Amino acid sequence: MPERVTIYDVAAAAGVSTATASKALNDTGRMAVETRDRIRRVARELGFRPNALARSLTSKRSFTVGLLTDDTYGRFTLPVMAGISEGLIDQGVSVFLCTVEDNPELAKVHVDAMLDKQVDGIIATGKRIDKPLPVDLSHLPVPVVYALTVGPGEAVTLVPDDDQGARAAVEHLIAQGRRRIVHVTGPGSFRVVHERAHAYAETLQAAGLAVDDAAILRGSWSERWGHDAVATLWSGKDQPDGIFCGNDQIARGVIDALRERNVDVPRDVSVVGYDNWEIVAEQTRPPLTTIDMNLKELGRQAGLALMRLVNGEAVEKGLWKLPCTLVVRGS
Amino acid sequence: MPERVTIYDVAAAAGVSTATASKALNDTGRMAVETRDRIRRVARELGFRPNALARSLTSKRSFTVGLLTDDTYGRFTLPVMAGISEGLIDQGVSVFLCTVEDNPELAKVHVDAMLDKQVDGIIATGKRIDKPLPVDLSHLPVPVVYALTVGPGEAVTLVPDDDQGARAAVEHLIAQGRRRIVHVTGPGSFRVVHERAHAYAETLQAAGLAVDDAAILRGSWSERWGHDAVATLWSGKDQPDGIFCGNDQIARGVIDALRERNVDVPRDVSVVGYDNWEIVAEQTRPPLTTIDMNLKELGRQAGLALMRLVNGEAVEKGLWKLPCTLVVRGS
Repeated sequence: MPERVTIYDVAAAAGVSTATASKALNDTGRMAVETRDRIRRVARELGFRPNALARSLTSKRSFTVGLLTDDTYGRFTLPVMAGISEGLIDQGVSVFLCTVEDNPELAKVHVDAMLDKQVDGIIATGKRIDKPLPVDLSHLPVPVVYALTVGPGEAVTLVPDDDQGARAAVEHLIAQGRRRIVHVTGPGSFRVVHERAHAYAETLQAAGLAVDDAAILRGSWSERWGHDAVATLWSGKDQPDGIFCGNDQIARGVIDALRERNVDVPRDVSVVGYDNWEIVAEQTRPPLTTIDMNLKELGRQAGLALMRLVNGEAVEKGLWKLPCTLVVRGS
Repeated sequence: MPERVTIYDVAAAAGVSTATASKALNDTGRMAVETRDRIRRVARELGFRPNALARSLTSKRSFTVGLLTDDTYGRFTLPVMAGISEGLIDQGVSVFLCTVEDNPELAKVHVDAMLDKQVDGIIATGKRIDKPLPVDLSHLPVPVVYALTVGPGEAVTLVPDDDQGARAAVEHLIAQGRRRIVHVTGPGSFRVVHERAHAYAETLQAAGLAVDDAAILRGSWSERWGHDAVATLWSGKDQPDGIFCGNDQIARGVIDALRERNVDVPRDVSVVGYDNWEIVAEQTRPPLTTIDMNLKELGRQAGLALMRLVNGEAVEKGLWKLPCTLVVRGS
């Protein structure tokens, strides 16, 4: 393994003093342009890498940020992480990923380790927007941005615009000529369940369609619940011709259950999911039409907002709602 | 936002000079035990955090490692990451996650950013063990460990023991009384496809069962291929009573296709998958019996091996094969 190249190596190879080498590389002091250029060329050839830690001590910037998440499976965090990284890599910023589950002690250990490394800031993210991480980040000596998890009122918090996303789903079903549209969704303990259900009802109403509380079926975020919901819906009369599902897994269960009842999707019933989780959406038969929360873009914006805070620039506080996109496939 | 507490603040609050405060906190120099204890108590109360960057310059350790991956979806990398983090957090080590896709330039930018931050070492990981990352890590000034991606011969490379995993799958089918066992797997361009197929054939042979090349069906890593394979197998006579699938998605397609043909799993046919990808395995009807590659443990061991290299301790070079586990569910 090669040793790290130091400024002493550069000085020796260029035949100058360490002080001269340092001046040339830091562009300080006075010297002939040719000397400066020659020292820099030698440094490049040797693969000299200025010590970022030493630079950080001077600039008070470490060019690192921490991403703290309770989403162990990474389903929501990975796209957010990809967006942050994409947004900040050009600025030379690297991202610590810290997964803390629901464990307050582990969260504290990770936060302390990040602060020890003098991160420039922290992005808190998670798997639901109505559940805080198991650690209080409101009094840290570095800026914090919240993405897909709840932050205090005075913080910058980025979330997908669930109202707009749910409207887009229901409007798509209406545009397919569907008139008896039901909503099969997750547990009522989730805030997004209420937001999506509210947008569903308002969109029906705006289109002059009847709104029936019984047409909102709450259960779990699972394929199994999709099957059960279809069994319930098809046990009565007046079956729906459109189903807006609260996530893609429910939608997959719904579509499988419909196929097993010889109900054709999309001829007899149109189905729209939520999440655009490709591994589920693309393998569904037919492939699933669904709402994409654009989590990568959300991560990118969270990273850029954090950098503005780090640089002392003005950033609008409060809740930022980012638009969702309808992805039309075969259902 | 509170300012960072500095050693000056500690000194002022304790009513001592900065030099004395520094000596007390670094446990150097001579002073009364009571003075030292008092200064430390004041530092604790103020929330003083010794500057890890400054410490790093002295110790030549940054207590950071980089995880470089081409697995954008994170399916394989997330459990590896969780294991590394779990293994190293007690040592105060934080992990940079860098996702590089197949992009050599992006990979170089990430590696440079990590080296700039003086990472103690790098773990390279990916989505297949026979495909190198798009960047050469063999001449870096820090140790590199490879996990789930191919490294040079003289490196430490950790992979799941695919031979043992595939044997465990086939032995389980034989133990269920199955005698006509086929293997439905992925594309022949993947090394694991050959390793698993080889282990499948040897295990049948060892049990005195007939081995037929036509019983190894290669396709894509998709549910769709599981459906197609069942259509092929059930178009002939002499249908199998056991199916070992190359991954969980194929197994899910196989099981769905069998149900649609009214073939009962596990009464008529037993099915074993590979990966223990819970989102697929648990939602399959019946839930899928499968092989777990223990990627979290693999990550933990990769992290610990890297730390031994960082500390200059002896580490056995070459390929480390880590055991897989059979997870019995309903299929």
